[in-house]
This record gives sequence, structure tokens and C-alpha cells, in this order.
Amino acid sequence: MVSDMRVGTAVDIHAFSSDPERKLFLACLEWPGEQGLEGHSDADVVAHAGADALLIASGIGELGTVFGVDQPQWAGASGKSLLAEAVRLVGEAGWTIMNVSVQLLGQKPRFAPRKVDAEEAMTVVVGAPVSVSASTSDHLGFVGRKEGLAAIATALVVRD
Amino acid sequence: MVSDMRVGTAVDIHAFSSDPERKLFLACLEWPGEQGLEGHSDADVVAHAGADALLIASGIGELGTVFGVDQPQWAGASGKSLLAEAVRLVGEAGWTIMNVSVQLLGQKPRFAPRKVDAEEAMTVVVGAPVSVSASTSDHLGFVGRKEGLAAIATALVVRD
Amino acid sequence: MVSDMRVGTAVDIHAFSSDPERKLFLACLEWPGEQGLEGHSDADVVAHAGADALLIASGIGELGTVFGVDQPQWAGASGKSLLAEAVRLVGEAGWTIMNVSVQLLGQKPRFAPRKVDAEEAMTVVVGAPVSVSASTSDHLGFVGRKEGLAAIATALVVRD
Repeated sequence: MVSDMRVGTAVDIHAFSSDPERKLFLACLEWPGEQGLEGHSDADVVAHAGADALLIASGIGELGTVFGVDQPQWAGASGKSLLAEAVRLVGEAGWTIMNVSVQLLGQKPRFAPRKVDAEEAMTVVVGAPVSVSASTSDHLGFVGRKEGLAAIATALVVRD
Repeated sequence: MVSDMRVGTAVDIHAFSSDPERKLFLACLEWPGEQGLEGHSDADVVAHAGADALLIASGIGELGTVFGVDQPQWAGASGKSLLAEAVRLVGEAGWTIMNVSVQLLGQKPRFAPRKVDAEEAMTVVVGAPVSVSASTSDHLGFVGRKEGLAAIATALVVRD
Repeated sequence: MVSDMRVGTAVDIHAFSSDPERKLFLACLEWPGEQGLEGHSDADVVAHAGADALLIASGIGELGTVFGVDQPQWAGASGKSLLAEAVRLVGEAGWTIMNVSVQLLGQKPRFAPRKVDAEEAMTVVVGAPVSVSASTSDHLGFVGRKEGLAAIATALVVRD
């Protein structure tokens, strides 16, 4: 007898902001001194992709509908709070999170020095193992031109 | 004793057609009034990515070889029929589909109004849960310039 | 009782080299007569993405840190040797590899003629089923402009 296990994959992309005052948030952390991303929310692509992958894997919906424009209470919410709410909804629907994998694609900021902090911050919110990694696009495409950041996440959930 | 469970991930990308008469097909549905995609087939990136992920997870092959140019009976076949045949091949090889996750990346068409229909159409063909979601690229890259659409799919299959 | 099963997804991207003498390596194979990719290593995006997905799924780390600039013994190492070491580390940490899926995104080289060889070469190194597939980007984006190659990999691992 196989448990009901499911996988979900999501991508999140945000452009860098031209506002020098805009703060950067990635993986539920603030990144002082780094250029921020545009968005109604804090544009935390790592937290967003992780939350979306969890909602998709569980068949609950997706970021844009669960926290969409017709849900005004979530307008401007942090990526961390969206991720926490996604985790709550996944659990409420009877799913156990096996793990979440998120990879940031960007030329900057340098991710490695805060990788451990990023994984810890995401893992605390998710309550299950989260791997957070980063890679460049070798200076190719919009990521390579430093126009924005992308994150790709895959989540694995199970229900007995 | 762990069952033989496997994962597969695939991306499908098609450019928008310059032919105003070309119809758009996504997730086994026609999208009236929307610009179509180029391709020998109906260029349904959502169905194609889902079918490819299933073939890849099961180790059967991939879309381009299973339905390739040396398989003339599949020339011009709809994404829906390719997906149905992929599902049949996966079952024939002894695999049970746990679920499929497909995310469309595009600035248009607006996906949310037909998300439920899209998931239902894909789920009927696959015979297992299919999550279909959509996201923009925040106006970045070829997706952001509305040159085409991309879809990324992950499938989970099991065999006892 | 569900086993501890985890998933990991990774992308690797390398630009084509302008050096006509530079050799191309993909999926642990040399591709004679094809334009090579830039990189300190052999820039084998298929082997790199697979190795990264395995490290990420297992929570061990990621390619850039495990084999990073502060690990000089891996400078210039082949993708095949990085993949083999990733597999060793994953096993040492107590994980069993269920499978790995890698898809190459590129307009060239033509992958289909060597798909079987590529899967065999990767499977021998990984010691578990590896699906290697390929797709174009329909001439869109940096892949479509033949500026480089991308590979996306997902790995599934389990620990009782």
C-alpha cells in the first residue's frame, strides 16, 4: 500500500527595482545593502516559489489565487507570512511536508555567505527540511543581465 | 521496503505565431480569441510538458523521441492526444501515476479564470491529480516580451 | 510509516565558448566536433545539474559550496567526477537514490542520436536510473540565440 505522495514545482520571478531605497528580501531574510526587487509584496522569490510549490503539490491552489488580488488581507504581505500561511493550509488539508527544495538563479547578491542562515530561516517557517541553493546563469538571459531574480522550487508532500 | 518511486521534470517552450488565425491550445483546452503558438502540433505547452515529465519519470523516453518525426502517425496530433498516449504508455510499463504538476509561464493569456477548467481537463486525461498553475515572468525575458510561452512540469510515478 | 523521502531540483547554465578548440562535454560524454562551453570545469551542464539536484535533495549542500573555490582539489574536475563524488556523499549520508531526471535545453547539439549513450553514461555513474532528455526553446531566449545551454534536474532520494 503506497501512501498518497505528491510533488509540485513552481517558478517565481521578480525584476530588480529602480528605487535605491527598496529593500531586498530573500528566503525570509532581509539582505541589507542589496538592490531590492519590484512587487506589491516584498518580492521574496525564494519564499514565494517555496510557498507556491507547496500549494501546488497539495492541490490546494497556487500563490496567485490563494493570496490574489481578491484576498486584500494579503496585499503587501511578506514572503515569510505567505509561506507560513501556505504551510498552515497544507497541514489543514491533511498533508505532511517531506521537504522543499528552492534554488535561486541570480548574478547577485552573493548567496553562499548566507546560505546556512537562509536554509535555517526557511526551515523554521516550513517545519520540515528546506534546501536553499543558488546558481548564476553565467551572465546569460535576464538573470545574467541583472534585470531580476528567479527561483525554482519543488515540494514533496504525503498523506496516509 | 520502499516502492520504486520516480520523479521526472520537463520544460516545453513554444513561440507565439504571427498568424492571427492560429488558435491557442493550453491544458487540453482551446482558448478562443487568444494568439496561438507556432508548432507542427497544436503547441499545447502545458499538455506537452506534462506528457514529457511522465515519459521521463517512467524512463520510457521523451516527447521528442516517442512522438518524433519518425513516428508520422503523431504528426499534427493534439497535446491532449499526446498526453493520453503518454499516460497509456506509462501504465503499460507498470507505473502508477501519483500526480503531475504543471506551471505555465506567460504574460498572457490570463490563466486564473480558467484554472479550474484546465486542471479538470488535464486530470480527466491523466486519470490522476494534476495541478495546473500559472505565473508571469514580471515582464522579463522572452516570456516577458510576449515572444512565447513556457511550461514546467514534474511528475511522480510509482511501481510496486 | 512513511520513509524519509526527499526531492531536489537544480538548474545549471553555461555560455558557449568563443574558443574553437574548446571541447563540449554533456552527460559525462565528449561530443566531438561540437562547440564547447565556457567554465573552469568541463562545463558539463547535464552532469552538474544532476549532481546539484542530488546534493540538494539530500540536504548535503550544493555544487557551488561542496566543490567551490575553497575546495582546490576540485578545480577543473570533470562533470563526471563531480557527479561521482556527489553520489558518494549522498550514499555516505545514508540516502538511497531513487532516480534522477535531467533535461537539456539547447538548440544544438542534436541530442537524440546520443540519448541512449548519455543515459547509460549517467546511469553508470549514479548507480540508479537516470533519465536524460533534451528540448529546444523554439529559438527563444539565450538558449534560442545559441548563447549557451541550460539543464534542469530533479532527484528523488530516500532514507529508511
